[in-house]
This record gives sequence, C-alpha cells and structure tokens, in this order.
Amino acid sequence: MDANKTELWRRFQRGYTEFDELGLALDLSRAQLADDYAERADVGPKLKGAFAAMARLEAGDIANPDEGRQVGHYWLRDPERAPNPATGQAIRQAIAELRHFAGQVHRAETIGQSGPFQHALVIGIGGSALGPQFVSHALGDPLRDKLRLHFFDNTDPDGMDRVLAGLGAALGQTLCLVISKSGGTKETENGMREAKVAYERARLDFERHAVAITMPGSQLDRLAEQAQWLRRFPIWDWVGGRTSQTSAVGLLPAALQGLDLDALLAGARACDAVTRRPDWTQNPAAQLALAWHGLGNGRGDKAMVVLPYKDRLELLARYLQQLVMESLGKERDLDGAVVHQGLTVYGNKGSTDQHAYVQQLRDGPANFFVLFLEVLRDRSGESPLVGPGVTSGDYLSGFLQGTRAALYEKGRPSLTLTLREVSAFSVGALIALFERAVGLYAGLIHINAYHQPGVQAGKEAAEAILRLQQRILDRFAAGQPARNGPGATAAELAQALGVPDEAEGVFKICQHLAANPGRGVKRLGGKSAANARYAPE
Amino acid sequence: MDANKTELWRRFQRGYTEFDELGLALDLSRAQLADDYAERADVGPKLKGAFAAMARLEAGDIANPDEGRQVGHYWLRDPERAPNPATGQAIRQAIAELRHFAGQVHRAETIGQSGPFQHALVIGIGGSALGPQFVSHALGDPLRDKLRLHFFDNTDPDGMDRVLAGLGAALGQTLCLVISKSGGTKETENGMREAKVAYERARLDFERHAVAITMPGSQLDRLAEQAQWLRRFPIWDWVGGRTSQTSAVGLLPAALQGLDLDALLAGARACDAVTRRPDWTQNPAAQLALAWHGLGNGRGDKAMVVLPYKDRLELLARYLQQLVMESLGKERDLDGAVVHQGLTVYGNKGSTDQHAYVQQLRDGPANFFVLFLEVLRDRSGESPLVGPGVTSGDYLSGFLQGTRAALYEKGRPSLTLTLREVSAFSVGALIALFERAVGLYAGLIHINAYHQPGVQAGKEAAEAILRLQQRILDRFAAGQPARNGPGATAAELAQALGVPDEAEGVFKICQHLAANPGRGVKRLGGKSAANARYAPE
Repeated sequence: MDANKTELWRRFQRGYTEFDELGLALDLSRAQLADDYAERADVGPKLKGAFAAMARLEAGDIANPDEGRQVGHYWLRDPERAPNPATGQAIRQAIAELRHFAGQVHRAETIGQSGPFQHALVIGIGGSALGPQFVSHALGDPLRDKLRLHFFDNTDPDGMDRVLAGLGAALGQTLCLVISKSGGTKETENGMREAKVAYERARLDFERHAVAITMPGSQLDRLAEQAQWLRRFPIWDWVGGRTSQTSAVGLLPAALQGLDLDALLAGARACDAVTRRPDWTQNPAAQLALAWHGLGNGRGDKAMVVLPYKDRLELLARYLQQLVMESLGKERDLDGAVVHQGLTVYGNKGSTDQHAYVQQLRDGPANFFVLFLEVLRDRSGESPLVGPGVTSGDYLSGFLQGTRAALYEKGRPSLTLTLREVSAFSVGALIALFERAVGLYAGLIHINAYHQPGVQAGKEAAEAILRLQQRILDRFAAGQPARNGPGATAAELAQALGVPDEAEGVFKICQHLAANPGRGVKRLGGKSAANARYAPE
Repeated sequence: MDANKTELWRRFQRGYTEFDELGLALDLSRAQLADDYAERADVGPKLKGAFAAMARLEAGDIANPDEGRQVGHYWLRDPERAPNPATGQAIRQAIAELRHFAGQVHRAETIGQSGPFQHALVIGIGGSALGPQFVSHALGDPLRDKLRLHFFDNTDPDGMDRVLAGLGAALGQTLCLVISKSGGTKETENGMREAKVAYERARLDFERHAVAITMPGSQLDRLAEQAQWLRRFPIWDWVGGRTSQTSAVGLLPAALQGLDLDALLAGARACDAVTRRPDWTQNPAAQLALAWHGLGNGRGDKAMVVLPYKDRLELLARYLQQLVMESLGKERDLDGAVVHQGLTVYGNKGSTDQHAYVQQLRDGPANFFVLFLEVLRDRSGESPLVGPGVTSGDYLSGFLQGTRAALYEKGRPSLTLTLREVSAFSVGALIALFERAVGLYAGLIHINAYHQPGVQAGKEAAEAILRLQQRILDRFAAGQPARNGPGATAAELAQALGVPDEAEGVFKICQHLAANPGRGVKRLGGKSAANARYAPE
C-alpha cells in the first residue's frame, strides 16, 4: 500500500463534489487547501460578505458603484429575477425577437442581396467577440451549423482583408452583426466601415446585410436606424461587456449558427441556482473562489493555467482572460486602498500544451496552478480502437491524469473541473459558473469586479497619437518640408509643429506612414531614429 | 517642454536599433534596463560565455550534454555550416526532395484517389504542429494557397471528428503528413490511426495519401516504408522538435501550401548572420536575451506578454510558449544546482487583447513585461479612410503606441519589435531571432536549453493509468462484478485488482469508461466518489 496514494484517495473523496443537475464535478483535492479554509477567521466573514454582496447585486443594487450601474447578467437567463417587471419584459422581448429574426434568416424569409444568408460576420471586440467565439467554437459543427460565423475582432486591415478573402463571393449572402455596447468602440466602427467598403466594391448595399447590437440611443443605434439596417437589438446599461454572453451579444450569433439557445440559457440558469447556495461545500463557484483565494494568498500570487482536454474548449482560456483579468485586475479596493489585485490566466488545451510548456510547469518556477477541464464523453459515437482495448480518448484522459499526478508530485497544485459532455447546457453552466466565481472572489478580496478604470489611459494616448498624425499629414500635404529637399528629421518635424517633446511619437508615426502606399510620406535614408529624414511623397 | 518626454526621446534614440538587412527594429528604451547592463561585472562575462557556447554549438559540439546530442538547427538554413560535408549534403538533399515532391503535388503529377490534392492534414503535436501552424497562419492567403492546411494536433476524438467533418468529401484529395521526430508520439500515432479509419470508411487507401516526416529507422519510418506510403522525409537526431521549423517538419507543409521557402530560409539565414555578432548593440537576439535577463532578474521573475498588433501573428505567442518555456523552464542548471528557471509566455494579439486584460496589466500586479510586435505595412494595397485622413491601420498603430505609453506611465516595462512587413523573409527572421535569443539567454543563466527532462513523468503516469484501465476492462469483460448485482465501488474494484491504493485512479477511469458507449461499463447511481458503483454493461 502506498500510504501517500491512500491519503490522496481520502482527500479526493472529501474534495470531489458532483453537481449532477449541472452535469459537472469539481475536485479541489490537489489544491493544497486546508479543509477548514472557508471557516478560517480571516476567510469565513469575507465569504459571508461576498454572498451578501452577490444577493444585493442580484436584487438590483448599484453593484458597480464606480460607474453608478446595476449589474444584471443573472437576470438575462431568469427574467423573473429582474428588479422590476419592465426589465424582465425587455429581456423576454429581446430574446423572442432575436429568435424570431434567426428563424426568418434560416427560413430564407430575410435574405441577402445574392440569396439566403450562409454566413454571419460578427464585427466586435473584447466582450463582443470573445464570448461569441468561445461558444461558436465549443458548440459548432461544420455539418449542422445553419450559418457559419466569421469575425472582425480587431482593427487590423490585413486581418480584415483575409476574412473577406475567405468569404469571397459570398458577401451578398453574409449577415453582418455589428456589436458594440457603447456604440463607439473604434475597432468595431473601423470594422464596420471596412465591411461597408467591401460591400460597395461588390456592388452590394451593406445596410441590407447589417444588424446592430448596441445600447438604445447609442451612436451605432442611431446610425443603424437612420440607414435602415435590417434590425437592431438592445444591450442594456446594466450588462457588462465581459458578462454579455447571455444577452443578444452572445445569443444572436448562437441563434443564427443554429445552436440550442434554450439549453444554453437553461444551463446558465441552473448553474446560477446552484451557485447561490450559501453552503460552499455544495457550491462550485464558491469552491473555485475559495481555491483561487487560498492558492494565490488572496493576492493572485499564482497564475491560473487553464487546460481543457478537449479541442472544443480551446478558446475558454481566452474568454476567461477577459472575464477574470479585466474583472479582478484592479489597482484599488472598494475602500480606495492601493492593492494591485489580479489573477493571471493563460492556456490553450491539453494534451497539446503538455508538449509546449509542461516542462516549465513541472520544473520551472512554482508561480501557477492548473485548472484542468476534463470532458467524460469523448465524441458523439463510438470510438475505434487505436491499440488493444484502447481509444484515442483513453489517451486524452490518461494524459490529463498523468500530468495532474506529475505536477502534484512536484508540489504544483491543480483543480479539476469535470464536464459530462460539451453541450449547449454545459457551456451555459460553465459561463455562469465562472461569472459567479469571479463575483464571489471579488467579494473575498473586496474589489469592484465590474468596472475597468485602467483601460481609458491607453485609449486617450492613442487618440493623442492620431491627432498628432493629423497635424503631420497636414504639414506634408502642404508641401513641408520641401518635396525635393533633404526632408526633416522627427525632431525637426516635432519642433516645427511646436511640440518638440513629441519627437518619439512623430518618429513612430512617420515610420508607419512611410511604410504604406498613398499616405504622402517617404523616408529618406538615415540609419537611426535620430537621423532618419522624411519628406512628402 | 515635457522633460520626461524629452528624456524618453533621448533614451529611445539610444535604445532603438534598426536592422535593415532583416527589415526589423528593436526598441529597448522602455525596458528600464541600465545602459551599461551588458557590461556589468555579473553580466558581461556571462554574455561572453553565452556567445562562446553558441559558437561551439554551431561548430557541432554536443550542446545538449544531457542527451548526448548535437544541436544543429542553424545548419538547416546554411548547410555550409554543418560540421561535416555529409550532414550538409543530407540537408540540401532533403530540401530538394521536398520541393520536388511539393511541385509534383502542385502539378497534379502525384494525386489522391479522388483527384489532385487540395488539402493537407498535418498530424503532429508540439514542435510538429506549433511551427507549421504559426507559419501557415502568418503567411497564408485563402485566394492564393495551393493547398489548404488542417491539423490533428491532439488526441481528442471529437476534435479529430470535427476536422474530418470540415474536410467532408475531400478526403480523397487530402494529403496526410504524419510528423513525429521519435516516430512514437502517442497523440500523433492515434491521429494517424483515426485518419486511417476515416479513409477506410470512405473506401479510400490511407497509404496512398500518406507522407511520413520522422527520424530514419523510427517506428513511424518503418511503418511508412512497409506500407508503401507516398514518401518519407527525414528529421535528424540533432534537430529538436521546438527548433524544427526550418527542417522538413516546417518546410514541407509550407511548400505544399505554396509559401516561399527560399525567402523563409533566407530570412532565417540572414538573421543567424546578424545574431552571431558579438557586439550586443548590433545584435537583436543578444539584446532580447539581455532584456529578458534584466527584466526578470535572471530568474524569469516577470512573464513575457507577447502582443503582436497583427492578426497574422496571432499564433506567435503559442509558438513561443513552446520555444521559450520548454527551453528555459528547467529545474537544474548545467552544474546540477536546483534553480527552477523559466520564462512564462502568454498573449494573443493587439489591439484585441487590450479589451481583454490591459486592465490588469496596467492596474494589477507588476508581474510581467510586454513584448510588442509592430508591423509597419498595414495591408497589401491602399487603405480606405475610416475617418478624416485616418485608416484602420492608423488606429492599430495608435493603440499600440497608446498602450505602450499607458503601461510605461504605470511602471510596466515593454520591448517593441518592429517588422517592416509580414513576409516569408521576416517570418524566417523572427523564427531565427527567437531561437538565438533563447539560446543566448540559456547561456546567461547557465542551463541546457535543448532537453526536456520534466515531460517524461507525466507520460509514464499516463501509461500507468492506461495499464490500470486494461485490467479494469478485463475484469468487467469477465463479468465481474456480476452484471445484475449491485456493482462495485472504486475502492472495492481497486481491492479486487490487488491495488487498493489506486482507488482514485480506478474511479477516474470508470467515470470515463461509463460516459462512453461501447466500453462495457455502466455507473449505478451513487452521489460521490466513495459510493458510486460500477458494473458491466
């Protein structure tokens, strides 16, 4: 008898909980968490406070005080819980309308200029892309999908060209979903404008293929109304981008693809019910939040490596990067104290990632824990044998168990979340599970999980760069420096523009302009930032 | 005048170096690295030692002492440098043969059972998938690619089903490249067996569509020879999986896709030449290695967040996860001292990731630095305007500059690597740049970058699980416990098999078997690991 293994089995029996109604189980036995962690004097009251805050949030309190907003994503799958009947009614109506619209598209009652819609191009970024991408990839089936989804999830011109090249002649059978809560997201606006140019080049009306998902009254909403787009669907002020998967943001793409909305919403609703349980031993979200807290000393000291052993869940870590890091990465706590909180997330899939970096996980710095995701059901039918009595799914399962054991042996902790299968129901449950875990963990560490004060500075700095670019372009367009002269250095240009301290920005802008055709700027030699010279082209 | 900005411009002029022959530039000015870092008494001699070790490696020394192997990836793009004429000749011949074969495929002189090859299915994992995926995505063009690449990069049955569903009826025009250096990688072997089943079901001969890339004499090589596959291409003992992109592993998929092998190899070769320079100020690989060393205190204290602002480079971080983390994540140094070295890599692309986790990067723990990748050329043609005087590429560029500034303002360091354009040449240069940077950094921290002693334990533990599974299956097949009885718990089964300490493993195996059809095991109720019961089905 291996005493260590016998003890692990004892711990497994205590640490492993099946949540049958969700088709999932959570195993904390390799998390090196004390059995009484949740009852510790410095943890118990925080957990109680986290549950109380969550109850207030669900009841319609201003749970995002910084922005004066309610936080209502739990109402989206259970409109009865909305704080007033009008909100509940608005949710029901939006879902009914998007279902109806998807049905019209599937039945070819609403069609594109070249025929029935075959593709949907989702134009969105962040919360307006990561959830739809995750769900589409997790549940899609090339043989069964009613529409195929494509994404503009950036403002990269070449990236958009490539998506358009892939669509080829099908543009007139492509439905464009422009998704931006604020209606003013620049990447999304640019994507919309580039798409419109592509439709025009194909002698098609973009407007006859366009749908908006945005806050009523936003810039995008008004544009879509004026230009008579096919349809507009609402996002509400109280839905955050990173928790919008069960709003029209996630549901419309899913409905168009032909996924089972009822099951997705039912899974989220069922998980919400289970994760409201105050008894943490019967609540997988509270268990996750407590484990994160214990593993990272309440400070996110260890990164969470997300390893789903299932190709369909490959985008989960990207989805969780936003949900977790944008929610928990905060400079200040709710009292204004500087805390620099966060929880780093990375990962792709197992066993693939074993061949990439399990070497470092086992032998390198102990700066992480792993969240294994196991899926019991291998595939839709039976598996062929790849060796005596063994299937490729047995190997997948074996590699997960083997890696978990090999990491544990070296003191690297892990959590294991087991799904019976990947289905619309279980994906809905997963989304709700992590939303709740993040909310409860935010309660434990006393931060606002629902704002993002740190993203503004970068946008403003970008806008300053674009204003500076405009002044440079104006100057070159006016023939300065002289077209046939020796040009000007970045420092000279900055001086001439009256912003001598902006030479670095001027250099970066000129480098970019000079590398692209038709921008009217050329570089004249020079081997360094100091002596590169620029002139009108 | 903003004194701070003026100082930053001064530092930029010193920290920014253009490597014109590579079409790239590197900017260390926001890395918070002392100007004399490379000359410090504790760094200078290490750098010298790293260069000396690299020179010995390139000359054919046993640079991987642990495995008694040479490390020859630099010879692959410059066969003249191979330590003996026979090796150089073998490299040249392999490249000539794979070019010739790709030409035959393109000219439909070699065809599948249903016609000319339109697709290639790459069956490989780790170093046999990440490089080909990165390069294919970086350089592919839906309108121009001669073959479209698909990947089995895992042993997930459902994942393989989905790839096969995407190929649909084109299986008879799909070329399968089975890639495994050792020829015994289980995921790859399983992928091959699943592919063979799919061909058989379609009444096609797998062998007439199959090519092997492996070490001569390996299990895979012998199988391919005996079964008369279309072709076999060599990998050599002295090519590591994570540095195999310029061997047949990377070159054959690229050639089949129709990418420019000459330019790819020329870019790598040109970068190798530049990164041999002993003067670190003129050597971008040495600069990267020094910056990693300074930023992470020579211990990898900070993760490297890889943010290419270009959709085509979206898989770079995944490629680098393997190259960097498997090379540098080591328990012991070359003297056997326990060091737990490593350098964590994660990231996807900008500006997309700004909307996911720049919130945490700016406001959360200061446990990272960013490697920005900027691409000056926006797209192949001119860009439409998306606003007055401004293109979507201007925004992409502006967001990069803005985020770099916003992070710096909060004391978060960054490096910026600028590419003139994404091309076969620049991608070749990138691959060589990071290979060399990893090698030099390994020299700085005195570790073997070319072995992976930590991955064996997980594989062995997985094999033990599969052996245990076989014993369980045998027992159930023999009708024990009784089919109509109350079944047995995991603990009882483990006891009956004479391995009472393996109850946890038995439970996990039974859960997996019972969730899949045709495995002969069913679960009989029970609400926990302790009382779940299993019986023959």
